[in-house]
Amino acid sequence: MKDTKYFTLYEHFRSLILDGSLSEDSKLPSIRECAASFEKSRTTVETAYDMLAADGYIISKPQSGFYVCAVNKANRIEPEKEEKVSYRFDLSTPSADKTAFNFTLWRKYVKGALRFDERLLSYGEVQGESDLRQAICDYVKKERGVFCSAEQIVVAAGTQSLIGILCAMLPEKKSVLFAGSNFIQGKAVFDAHGKDVSGMLDIEEALEKLQESKPDIIYTSPSHIDRWGSVMSSTQRRKLLSLAEKCGSLLIEDDYDSEFRYVSKPISPLRAMNNGENVLYIGTFSRLLLPSIRISFMVLPAALMSDYRKIAPLFNQTASKAEQLALCSFLRDGHLSSQIKKQRRHYAAKTAEMLSIASKKLSEGIRAEECAGSYLIRLIFSGDRSAAEICEKARGEGIKMQPVDDFGGARILLNVSGISTEDFAEVLEILQKL
Amino acid sequence: MKDTKYFTLYEHFRSLILDGSLSEDSKLPSIRECAASFEKSRTTVETAYDMLAADGYIISKPQSGFYVCAVNKANRIEPEKEEKVSYRFDLSTPSADKTAFNFTLWRKYVKGALRFDERLLSYGEVQGESDLRQAICDYVKKERGVFCSAEQIVVAAGTQSLIGILCAMLPEKKSVLFAGSNFIQGKAVFDAHGKDVSGMLDIEEALEKLQESKPDIIYTSPSHIDRWGSVMSSTQRRKLLSLAEKCGSLLIEDDYDSEFRYVSKPISPLRAMNNGENVLYIGTFSRLLLPSIRISFMVLPAALMSDYRKIAPLFNQTASKAEQLALCSFLRDGHLSSQIKKQRRHYAAKTAEMLSIASKKLSEGIRAEECAGSYLIRLIFSGDRSAAEICEKARGEGIKMQPVDDFGGARILLNVSGISTEDFAEVLEILQKL
Repeated sequence: MKDTKYFTLYEHFRSLILDGSLSEDSKLPSIRECAASFEKSRTTVETAYDMLAADGYIISKPQSGFYVCAVNKANRIEPEKEEKVSYRFDLSTPSADKTAFNFTLWRKYVKGALRFDERLLSYGEVQGESDLRQAICDYVKKERGVFCSAEQIVVAAGTQSLIGILCAMLPEKKSVLFAGSNFIQGKAVFDAHGKDVSGMLDIEEALEKLQESKPDIIYTSPSHIDRWGSVMSSTQRRKLLSLAEKCGSLLIEDDYDSEFRYVSKPISPLRAMNNGENVLYIGTFSRLLLPSIRISFMVLPAALMSDYRKIAPLFNQTASKAEQLALCSFLRDGHLSSQIKKQRRHYAAKTAEMLSIASKKLSEGIRAEECAGSYLIRLIFSGDRSAAEICEKARGEGIKMQPVDDFGGARILLNVSGISTEDFAEVLEILQKL
Repeated sequence: MKDTKYFTLYEHFRSLILDGSLSEDSKLPSIRECAASFEKSRTTVETAYDMLAADGYIISKPQSGFYVCAVNKANRIEPEKEEKVSYRFDLSTPSADKTAFNFTLWRKYVKGALRFDERLLSYGEVQGESDLRQAICDYVKKERGVFCSAEQIVVAAGTQSLIGILCAMLPEKKSVLFAGSNFIQGKAVFDAHGKDVSGMLDIEEALEKLQESKPDIIYTSPSHIDRWGSVMSSTQRRKLLSLAEKCGSLLIEDDYDSEFRYVSKPISPLRAMNNGENVLYIGTFSRLLLPSIRISFMVLPAALMSDYRKIAPLFNQTASKAEQLALCSFLRDGHLSSQIKKQRRHYAAKTAEMLSIASKKLSEGIRAEECAGSYLIRLIFSGDRSAAEICEKARGEGIKMQPVDDFGGARILLNVSGISTEDFAEVLEILQKL
């Protein structure tokens, strides 16, 4: 639109009408006058007026001229004035640690991927690029004991996108139980698709009630069943598998946090266990590699392949093709495995160091504990204040933390990934004074 | 899992069990024997056996040893043997033309974006990076006359992802009418969310029946209302706007093909017309820039902002952050506008040249026509054969085409973007002989 001559003029009058400078029923200059004062040709002015009229801003009255129409001015809204707090220390969410991630290496791979001009000029495979799917296939076999073929892998921009595809695939599955997972964004997607979503964070309770409720789908993350990153025991996993089979439920295993364990060994995924062949396995590289990368994948059970094939052409690929190609080579060259090993060591050392700082810095009233999960520390406050109250006060001091509960004292979760070890003493001093 | 010593052993036995080499009830070597023959410590063997037992592959019989359990071998499926045709010429889908797209320039911007280490190490804004939203805001104002604030813009990986968010936002809106749009992937998403989807490709028919059906949502693409890329007339657009208002329907305007017009001028979007303030505007950079880039955006009407804010935290951003940053700078520097101008000229010249080749090469029985839409040519075959039949025969010759209908002869749509001008004569010769 911009490169046509009349547009400046059209735009000029449109703005005047929208901001009220030209009020309803006011008359526009004649075409001749306008052409003269704006130094445009009469044709250009005519076109601009015609466009304004076509878009309903002005109206032509025969033998009289052009008049401004009634215009609703609600076309624009101003940015909502949200209270923006700038945090000095964000301990509330996992992020990649600059010192632990080899950014230069990853950059090299993205640059390499950008050389595939031909591939980047076209839309890609709806299921994800086949070479990437093969690389993922090899990766999950090697690292997680998950055997599958590249055909069974579906790539998408994030786990929510995968759940969207699943909902379209399995319209007859109506009820979803979240057990040992509190992935609220996942629940939101099932919910938006009209599924009947329920949740039970306590895994023992879930296992007990499973036979009554017989959900069509069970969503679980055995490597991270509660806020503290605890894992599902081997007994619980076997029980879950057998109950799911008994109830005819599809088990979805979200293995998002699987490899960042260092306190305990990574546990075997349900998908790799006996009778695990009907488990739908989900993994994500946002977690494994870099949060800003939106590539997740699912391994479909063989039994669901025909359901997937029916709807596959209806769902465009959502993940960036350049990043898919970069990830493919990165996986093939074994860098993800070594990156993760390096990060695991780094976070283990960092958490240990922070716990040692805490043991020296913290006096009565606050205690720091190691969690089962990846780079997580639990702070326990004695006294009557609630975790929410403490986090609210910390917010005022520029510290963002996640309150969890008040089970035997206010309990707060710290993600050590988002803070450098040097700053930890300062954070603790502030918390101590709250 | 890989970097723990027992894993090789675990993996070894697991494979043997899965492929049947170790059958049900067969006995595993004792821990001592196994340690000796694999040159591992007894502890390592014990751990491997424990893991195999924990995962249900083997069972320990006291005072006897370890035995293989019954295992379902359906763990893996083989790739489906699909008939893969390799096409020499693909005229069925739009793709970016290598000669028209300045890939080197785009590459420079992606590389630039990769320098923002700090930003790439964290998850981004759920709504899309705010600087990108501001750049889009400025872009649509300048190029499409769409006034809005960055707050009203939501970014996601593709239009389907945006529709997913909309469905979650507007659960009470149950019926969706596609009028002047046949976006089947969009229909699929609404459908998966339990919406009542209907479609009417003919816009006049849709306008007539609108008042009866009173759909909650009308989905339309005024810049591309049929397969041939025809546009909705100004009269039709105004009628649609007023009918939507009368019926209380939300108008969703998918402007995906807006700027690739060269036969006619780009038309003004509904969103930019009077009474257009309640139109939800959607645009996509997959089309404007590069198919492999998955970044679309919507401009929410002011009236829907509170609905969006309610669900916003539940939907993670799907678009790659690096590409968002690259696109932001690319837009700011004005490159998209100039790229599009360049491409428009290129495709206009290319289509004209192809039509001239066609007029020389085609003899009786086939006719080539210019379409209203962007770089599209219509082939009309006289005779009794159907369009589908002809496309099927062409497939055998390595040519992929899109049959449309048999309205006064078989009519087939050619996307000239996917083929070079030099090859066009050859394609026509093959088609002539079919």
